[in-house]
Amino acid sequence: MNKKCAPDWIAVDWGTTHLRAYAMQGATVVSRAKSDDGMGRLKPADFEPALRALIGDWLAGGNVPVIACGMVGSRQGWVEAPYRAVPCAPLTDTLTTAPTTQGLEVRVICGLSQNNPADVMRGEETQVAGFLHLNPGWDGVLCLPGTHTKWVHLSAGEVVSFQTFMSGELFALISQNSVLRHSVIGEGWDAGAFEAAVSDAMSHPERLAARLFSLRAADLLHGTAASVSRAALSGLLIGGELAAARPYWLGQNTAILGTGTQARAYQSALRAQGVEAMRVDSERATLAGLTTAYKTTKATL
Amino acid sequence: MNKKCAPDWIAVDWGTTHLRAYAMQGATVVSRAKSDDGMGRLKPADFEPALRALIGDWLAGGNVPVIACGMVGSRQGWVEAPYRAVPCAPLTDTLTTAPTTQGLEVRVICGLSQNNPADVMRGEETQVAGFLHLNPGWDGVLCLPGTHTKWVHLSAGEVVSFQTFMSGELFALISQNSVLRHSVIGEGWDAGAFEAAVSDAMSHPERLAARLFSLRAADLLHGTAASVSRAALSGLLIGGELAAARPYWLGQNTAILGTGTQARAYQSALRAQGVEAMRVDSERATLAGLTTAYKTTKATL
Repeated sequence: MNKKCAPDWIAVDWGTTHLRAYAMQGATVVSRAKSDDGMGRLKPADFEPALRALIGDWLAGGNVPVIACGMVGSRQGWVEAPYRAVPCAPLTDTLTTAPTTQGLEVRVICGLSQNNPADVMRGEETQVAGFLHLNPGWDGVLCLPGTHTKWVHLSAGEVVSFQTFMSGELFALISQNSVLRHSVIGEGWDAGAFEAAVSDAMSHPERLAARLFSLRAADLLHGTAASVSRAALSGLLIGGELAAARPYWLGQNTAILGTGTQARAYQSALRAQGVEAMRVDSERATLAGLTTAYKTTKATL
Repeated sequence: MNKKCAPDWIAVDWGTTHLRAYAMQGATVVSRAKSDDGMGRLKPADFEPALRALIGDWLAGGNVPVIACGMVGSRQGWVEAPYRAVPCAPLTDTLTTAPTTQGLEVRVICGLSQNNPADVMRGEETQVAGFLHLNPGWDGVLCLPGTHTKWVHLSAGEVVSFQTFMSGELFALISQNSVLRHSVIGEGWDAGAFEAAVSDAMSHPERLAARLFSLRAADLLHGTAASVSRAALSGLLIGGELAAARPYWLGQNTAILGTGTQARAYQSALRAQGVEAMRVDSERATLAGLTTAYKTTKATL
């Protein structure tokens, strides 16, 4: 890396299944790198080597501070960054220092917790902070689709409450490991089947386990297309979630952090309820949040 | 096998994960055998060798008819035994003959199908027929707990309608493969947590995906015992199922086919709704059904 591109700090988004790093000059990305060394496959002693393998070149001119968010700060991660209880701002200037060698400074952002209903987040608090930086003064509800989708109520710059749904993980388990896998693997997406399933699940969420088997039976008896079954599976899960999350989105200013298939599915399901949700790039929000954390903690580094 | 114990026919219960065979003299079991050669691990050409490996000794005195039920009759099984559409009696004298060598006669019982809502069963129809043989003239609702739990409405000796719930498979997937696995593996069963979760899910079935994550979060934040989390997971799934199956069990004569942990959980959940369900041994019902099939088809063998 030539000198004019040398970073003054490094942003790291380290989740269960991914590791993404960004060489930063202030708020500007000068280089990016990623690997599959997610927290889920690493033991505590593996984190520093995994990070150095990815960003070693960027440190050739000397160590620069690293700010990391995500599951890297969990009990099974590099260092446990304690949860901060809501209601609170998504970030503070208190970060947790990871154990390192040779002068490398790695600070990990704390997750958020909620006592009742019991809930936790790690990584999303950084996206929420980034979203607030990009949309100053915004009040309303954020939906962060993912393996564990989060609904977050924001007011006056604080996270008031949040709720996590395992819908994304259920979709993955059911479509890859259940008897339904024979019926949902394939191409295409039937928007009508998705909408009908959302509506059905919002009216009768108790029927989920029966509707799931019925998708398999309909395929056996009538040869349903995979594009129909897969969209219906997604619709059943998202519909049930929207029914439960109604106190979050009903009559609220709503935004979705994400731009992929799953985020578009949430947007379309919300639109059918008369809610027009803004969509925001989640990587941009993550980087804005990591930058905010860097700037607020710079004085202490 | 000495001559006085030589069977005059052989009963076979062949599911996705198990193969159970019974040497029969009329309605009496004279010997039993089982293996792990379930349908799920066999190709079509593997079925006859798998069966002979298990019951070869019983055929030493000559071939006797074999009557089989279960997934052995599915499209991925030994021979596809076509579905019979409800409403209909659980059994007829029309069985499907499997392709065999050396004069072995294997006949497979047909499954049942329902057009709308789309649904199928294979194996349970034999248990239902056996239950009716053991309880002549019985009208009401049968619950058959399993990977895919069935609720079956019986009237005047016919299956009027039925509904399958994937709750058992969801329990297995979530407890073994999801993020919740860290919180539910262990010993014990907290009956209070089960009852509270049943009640919660019956009132708010739409909250399932959030309640599931909350079990994990409560463990992370408060160190919940696995006996509590696992019973609550079961209660959330069974509670949602009871809410959807209410038209089946409400005000009906109800029986549960099964004697294990899962069957007791259904019984306890139904009792909390004021329904006292009779429990019947499912192996006994399977054997009675296979015997009924043998007797009604004997003339054609």
